[in-house]
Amino acid sequence: MTQPSPSRLDRQMDFLMEIDRLKSVHRATKLADGTRRENSAEHSWHVALFALTLAEHAPQGIDRARVIEMLLLHDLVEIDAGDAPVYGNHDASAVAEAERKAADRIFGLLPEDQGAHFRAIWEEFEAMQTPEARFAKSLDRFAPPNMNIANGGGSWAEYNVDFGTFQANVGMKILQGAPALWEWIAPRAKAVIDRLREGPKP
Amino acid sequence: MTQPSPSRLDRQMDFLMEIDRLKSVHRATKLADGTRRENSAEHSWHVALFALTLAEHAPQGIDRARVIEMLLLHDLVEIDAGDAPVYGNHDASAVAEAERKAADRIFGLLPEDQGAHFRAIWEEFEAMQTPEARFAKSLDRFAPPNMNIANGGGSWAEYNVDFGTFQANVGMKILQGAPALWEWIAPRAKAVIDRLREGPKP
Ligand SMILES: [Ca+2]
Repeated sequence: MTQPSPSRLDRQMDFLMEIDRLKSVHRATKLADGTRRENSAEHSWHVALFALTLAEHAPQGIDRARVIEMLLLHDLVEIDAGDAPVYGNHDASAVAEAERKAADRIFGLLPEDQGAHFRAIWEEFEAMQTPEARFAKSLDRFAPPNMNIANGGGSWAEYNVDFGTFQANVGMKILQGAPALWEWIAPRAKAVIDRLREGPKP
Repeated sequence: MTQPSPSRLDRQMDFLMEIDRLKSVHRATKLADGTRRENSAEHSWHVALFALTLAEHAPQGIDRARVIEMLLLHDLVEIDAGDAPVYGNHDASAVAEAERKAADRIFGLLPEDQGAHFRAIWEEFEAMQTPEARFAKSLDRFAPPNMNIANGGGSWAEYNVDFGTFQANVGMKILQGAPALWEWIAPRAKAVIDRLREGPKP
């Protein structure tokens, strides 16, 4: 006897239960209260809320629903490839290759048409060529420094980041997608980073 | 000297940093791998993905983006009111009152127009009168039994739930919003629940 072939819903459920593992992928960023590192699933929720709340600071005419879909999907590849902290030293092409393989496997769990659709959304996000992708990426870069400010240093302290490095690795992408958000955070980030690097006052 | 009054963006950021606390609200449901309880932020991400993936099983013509917005916002009141487990004994009117106060405070952090808009989305979800709200609620009820099946019992074991209680507390709401999902999960849930209640075979 052969098993009946899985239905569309069977395959969708395989995907939905597999992605539960994103709740166990940890990031360099800590919660706002500093008590633990955040995981990539709750981070994805948080940045989707950033998109919903800050949509008025995006370029006019942007498709907000598509931005939210990108942010919900953007970190799924980390289930296999892990999170590559923004201040870490990575072999960018090795990371990209690991993420491509992860996308093959994870989106491949879905019915073919749907897997291709979700993958296209993820690739659009990564390519940063559309206004939606640039805004989504800017939010993905904007959330963590706000957490660092709230918890008094976070990944800036851990990686001994100076303001120039923050501008280059993070600020540029915020600026490209959401200039108003860069203007808002730059002085706040600088105050915390400069204080961390001065060390305790004598 | 008086402080300048907070800008729209200042208030939006107060809201976005306050809601980080949803990552520390724990639920009765455990992760699919059973290693720990899930929190309400990562659960909100997961059910938003359920909506994105399972939209074809919703009534025709449903506004999928609105369903996703509902699911992203639906648990924010738990920051103050806590999670009320579906199999627990609660004073329903006390829970509703605590959630109403939580909504006043949390949505009140936002600029007034935006706070009213988000609150209306949350109230639509709770009222279950629109097809979008019924589908969103069905997904919120559909996700946890899938976790219980994956981890071999979860909250069913903890609360000693029988299939009739599962049908009444959970199944009815899945059925109302998404009959195909109820049809899919009912036999799978029954098999696990019946096995739990038989106990180990002699
Ligand atoms: Ca990431």
